[in-house]
Amino acid sequence: MTVNWAEHFSSLASKTEGSALADIFKLTERPDVISFAGGFPAPDMYLIPEVQDVAKEVFSRHATKALGYGPTPGFSEFRDFIAARQTRLDMPAARQNILITSGSLQALDLLGRMFLDKGDRVLVEGPTYLGAITTLSTFDVQIETVPTDEKGLQVEWLEEHLRAWSRQDRLPRILYTIPTFQNPSGRVLDLDRRYYLLELACHYDFMIIEDNAYGELRFRGEPVPTLKSLDEEGRVIYLGTLSKVFSPGVRLGWLHAEPEVVRKGILLRQGVDQCSNSIGQLLALEFGKRGLLEKQIQHTSQMLKQKAEMTLSQLEKEFPPDSQWTRPEGGFYTWVTLPEYIDTQKALLHCVEKARVAYVPGPAFYCRNQGQNQLRLCYSEPSLDKIKEGIPRLAQALAEGGRG
Amino acid sequence: MTVNWAEHFSSLASKTEGSALADIFKLTERPDVISFAGGFPAPDMYLIPEVQDVAKEVFSRHATKALGYGPTPGFSEFRDFIAARQTRLDMPAARQNILITSGSLQALDLLGRMFLDKGDRVLVEGPTYLGAITTLSTFDVQIETVPTDEKGLQVEWLEEHLRAWSRQDRLPRILYTIPTFQNPSGRVLDLDRRYYLLELACHYDFMIIEDNAYGELRFRGEPVPTLKSLDEEGRVIYLGTLSKVFSPGVRLGWLHAEPEVVRKGILLRQGVDQCSNSIGQLLALEFGKRGLLEKQIQHTSQMLKQKAEMTLSQLEKEFPPDSQWTRPEGGFYTWVTLPEYIDTQKALLHCVEKARVAYVPGPAFYCRNQGQNQLRLCYSEPSLDKIKEGIPRLAQALAEGGRG
Repeated sequence: MTVNWAEHFSSLASKTEGSALADIFKLTERPDVISFAGGFPAPDMYLIPEVQDVAKEVFSRHATKALGYGPTPGFSEFRDFIAARQTRLDMPAARQNILITSGSLQALDLLGRMFLDKGDRVLVEGPTYLGAITTLSTFDVQIETVPTDEKGLQVEWLEEHLRAWSRQDRLPRILYTIPTFQNPSGRVLDLDRRYYLLELACHYDFMIIEDNAYGELRFRGEPVPTLKSLDEEGRVIYLGTLSKVFSPGVRLGWLHAEPEVVRKGILLRQGVDQCSNSIGQLLALEFGKRGLLEKQIQHTSQMLKQKAEMTLSQLEKEFPPDSQWTRPEGGFYTWVTLPEYIDTQKALLHCVEKARVAYVPGPAFYCRNQGQNQLRLCYSEPSLDKIKEGIPRLAQALAEGGRG
Repeated sequence: MTVNWAEHFSSLASKTEGSALADIFKLTERPDVISFAGGFPAPDMYLIPEVQDVAKEVFSRHATKALGYGPTPGFSEFRDFIAARQTRLDMPAARQNILITSGSLQALDLLGRMFLDKGDRVLVEGPTYLGAITTLSTFDVQIETVPTDEKGLQVEWLEEHLRAWSRQDRLPRILYTIPTFQNPSGRVLDLDRRYYLLELACHYDFMIIEDNAYGELRFRGEPVPTLKSLDEEGRVIYLGTLSKVFSPGVRLGWLHAEPEVVRKGILLRQGVDQCSNSIGQLLALEFGKRGLLEKQIQHTSQMLKQKAEMTLSQLEKEFPPDSQWTRPEGGFYTWVTLPEYIDTQKALLHCVEKARVAYVPGPAFYCRNQGQNQLRLCYSEPSLDKIKEGIPRLAQALAEGGRG
């Protein structure tokens, strides 16, 4: 007699089905596919010789520490390093404000455990990072999508709805946002709207989770202050990550928040994975202390600039005149809106199988059925030549295979 | 105006308070403390020169892979390596049976998400691993403690209660057990009881989660088959870890189960931390392929044998005649039961501050208030000299400070 698994799965497990993220990994495994899908750094963005030198140092001088357990909130020296860096970036922090996490998605999972009860209202941008949708969905909450435009999330819409929710006594607990070089849109939340959003959070008493995975990867235009740097109440919980500026494989991110939040996060993490990997922390610390994060950020931003320009100029040349796309000033993504008769989910299989080119269809970035005629292009990973070759192939495949 | 955090925390966060695990880390930080507290390998159990050589190979040949994202279930080659190893250990497995996790505690968290709904009944041994209690508690379930004796968990007690729970239609969903060199007791579940337990799981249709963190670290006596190797239905979900046989700092464990469970685990993990760290996986794979896991297991077991013998002979000499302790054949721990008038929780502060010696008090290993006169000694980390010196100091400090 074998087990009937379906009978044994929890309600969460029963409703958890295949997601677009898994598909991304599969699509990118075929070597002949030009992939604009996964949001990965390109291999030549890594500083390999520098990393080799750092690794040699870590394993020759700190091998025992690298192999042993670290404390749950991260190594103290590493927390101090991150705190000093946050301070330099206009977000004053000390060690007790920093919790090291296994990637910034883990930080979001911990924050979900910390702030969310079943049925709570949670706000995200539409479209938004699909990993965040996956994580927030596990808490059985009511996710509301705040619409966005070229200036980021629409604060007037938000205020109107906050007023209504306040009357119902059903205000949101948290708002999750990627205000700078948003995933998937590449957009930046306008400075005036940043102030407006902070006022709304204060007035309606909800937390803002600011995911700034891409904020340092600006390749044109003027920097806009982070929400955290404008925050006077400790209401913004900042999520940082080394995935785009050092290495995604080290699985290291951090949360910058009030000490109360960090303390609770440490306790909750003891039931999750206890601590982040020690080797990664020591590598990242040594890499950072040598000033190499800044070097990699500069190097990566330059490459992103060229790749974004190539992508935009190819889109201009190859895509039909009734399509639109965002013009990012930094980060990994442009967000393409096609004529309404094109269904990007249906077209994906055709694009991959016939034209060997991949992207992520728009609906992956929404909680409900939206974005059917939209798609995310990640220009970070493919080379300039592949971008040049891939966009025309994509345009043609969408025209052939995209009719809904 | 600052945020009133207590008003914002979820019900889970509100009830999550400081745990013994955090205290362990703090206690062991003072260099003059002889710590029998944390369940860590000793620094000289690591094979440092071999690891340095492995690291050199990984960073010179696979640096890009080591820095990049890996797939959610782990690198395929690493899953294959673990599957082959499980097969050699009499637990036949293929890649689709293996999910790599960030330590085996993460596997338990994923399994909780997979099998547990609020209010479900869950079984653990009493005493049991405190990390498991922490993790299972987050699911708002009813944890029942199955009592244990020198042969491990009491299957007759279990059967009696299963019958009663069956009549109430409230059977448990899972049983979490560490059948070999249990944490904290060091005991081994008797072979007859293993068969009996499997029959009960089959008859009453619940899952067994077998945590085998210590099973390979036998230093005397004859091996007993794992529950997984006796399992004919796929009902046993096996948790393995590299924390005690390679390095806890790599944060790598695995789950060995039916493909349905692994598939669901991959999906659930996409909302948690997406994947394990790549560097650790590549290091562990290269280390394993060179046969070094076996070398480290042998080396560690020999050291544990000496340390356990020193611990037991010192206990014999120094502890009062009305106290008892287990005599482990492997693993890290002995479990000490003192006269009832000694309160090990109250005594801990005195032991650390006055005698500079640390342990974990018994109640940490129970869900409810039990084990007040018990404590766990981990003999793995301190050197032979420190054990020799520490046990008499502990005996005296308990006599002075332990009266409840």
